[in-house]
Amino acid sequence: MIQTILNHRSIRKYSKKNIDKQILDEILLAGTRASTTGNMQIYSVIVSTEKELKNRLWEVHFKQDMVNQAPVVLTFCADMNRFNKWCKARNTEPAYDNFLWFYNASIDAILAAQNVALAAESHGLGICYLGTTTYMADKIADILNLPEQVVPVTTLVVGYPDESPELTDRLPVEAVVHYEKYQDYDKEKIEQLYKEKENLPSTKELIKVNGTENLAQIFTQKRYVKKDNLHFSKSFLEFIKKQNFMNND
Amino acid sequence: MIQTILNHRSIRKYSKKNIDKQILDEILLAGTRASTTGNMQIYSVIVSTEKELKNRLWEVHFKQDMVNQAPVVLTFCADMNRFNKWCKARNTEPAYDNFLWFYNASIDAILAAQNVALAAESHGLGICYLGTTTYMADKIADILNLPEQVVPVTTLVVGYPDESPELTDRLPVEAVVHYEKYQDYDKEKIEQLYKEKENLPSTKELIKVNGTENLAQIFTQKRYVKKDNLHFSKSFLEFIKKQNFMNND
Repeated sequence: MIQTILNHRSIRKYSKKNIDKQILDEILLAGTRASTTGNMQIYSVIVSTEKELKNRLWEVHFKQDMVNQAPVVLTFCADMNRFNKWCKARNTEPAYDNFLWFYNASIDAILAAQNVALAAESHGLGICYLGTTTYMADKIADILNLPEQVVPVTTLVVGYPDESPELTDRLPVEAVVHYEKYQDYDKEKIEQLYKEKENLPSTKELIKVNGTENLAQIFTQKRYVKKDNLHFSKSFLEFIKKQNFMNND
Repeated sequence: MIQTILNHRSIRKYSKKNIDKQILDEILLAGTRASTTGNMQIYSVIVSTEKELKNRLWEVHFKQDMVNQAPVVLTFCADMNRFNKWCKARNTEPAYDNFLWFYNASIDAILAAQNVALAAESHGLGICYLGTTTYMADKIADILNLPEQVVPVTTLVVGYPDESPELTDRLPVEAVVHYEKYQDYDKEKIEQLYKEKENLPSTKELIKVNGTENLAQIFTQKRYVKKDNLHFSKSFLEFIKKQNFMNND
């Protein structure tokens, strides 16, 4: 268990080998055993395998090749729709069309996703999360026919790896762990925590390729720039509202 | 691995036994190996063990006894603060004070939490997620000294179990899994999917105790009622704004 967790690498190249139905079923079952708000299971998983459908998803996920390559694309959704329909069938009015329940349902979906990811990896499969899911939530919802009160929150591509990447570097554990209360970072602490990462040969190569002064500037000036952050914040919030999750008054 | 996932039960009663430092360290390391947005690690984990501090957390987590009982309380936070400080130290201006990055950082925190939960369970420890975290985010932030751009998103209590609960029921896997695209639920499908859950002896007992007509009404009329949902939606959104995550224009 721990070894599966510690050995995780995101896989971005996949072989053509399909996933046996039995394995896929077990992985999906693992998802349903994750903790869930009040045992309400307010999430859904869309298992997309058809070539044409995956191609449409590839298009909106910034044309990342792994979406077409991987045999299975799993879109995890915050989903109050099923629960609402059950409530209405039981003569009672649900009141989950607000931000709290969008967020609760998001947590449910993400916990299920991580169980699925680890169950897949324990079978020798590779996975990669697609952060583009929230950027393109409205387009993904169109492709997958998501009804009101359903929002895609993350996507996993799953398949047999066609690469063996090194373990990705991480900050030292002390960078993210605080004892008792939050210990804020002073300049000296920041220097200490980021030193190893900044001195990696791969980091130096990345800085050269990007033509920036340092690694932080790659994030702020190349990868995740203000204009895009504002655009995607607005479009995601608008979509959450459109899906009827913002009636907070 | 799969067995650990399939055997998960939330534990709500804990023995007095402490967690060895070596085991705690390994569990926290497991958290840092989870997938993370752009390898930015935009989350923090607060490890609270002091009796008085846990008592303050117990108070805000609706006085659930497991918060005092469990030797360790882990508060997982969406955290752009450390990353921002690094950017500023590197002569570049971060633009992560918006909803997109609150949400990305939330996903990071929740993925790390589920790794920690499973690593703990693989060591024979028990865990329980506290949904009260978002309800009381502002109060938790006060207790734990959370600075701007840090929001608590979920909490795990961790310790050795002092109970052996049965596996919790779940809807059949087909209830949450859709093939290719979302398959919406008609009345007949809802009946089929909820039948087993509604016929459990534990469900019938719960309905009797709550004096409702059915299980759905326990959720809508007793546990998660409109007034509270609206209150906590507003207070959580206000807190996200206060923590400087809502500058979307």
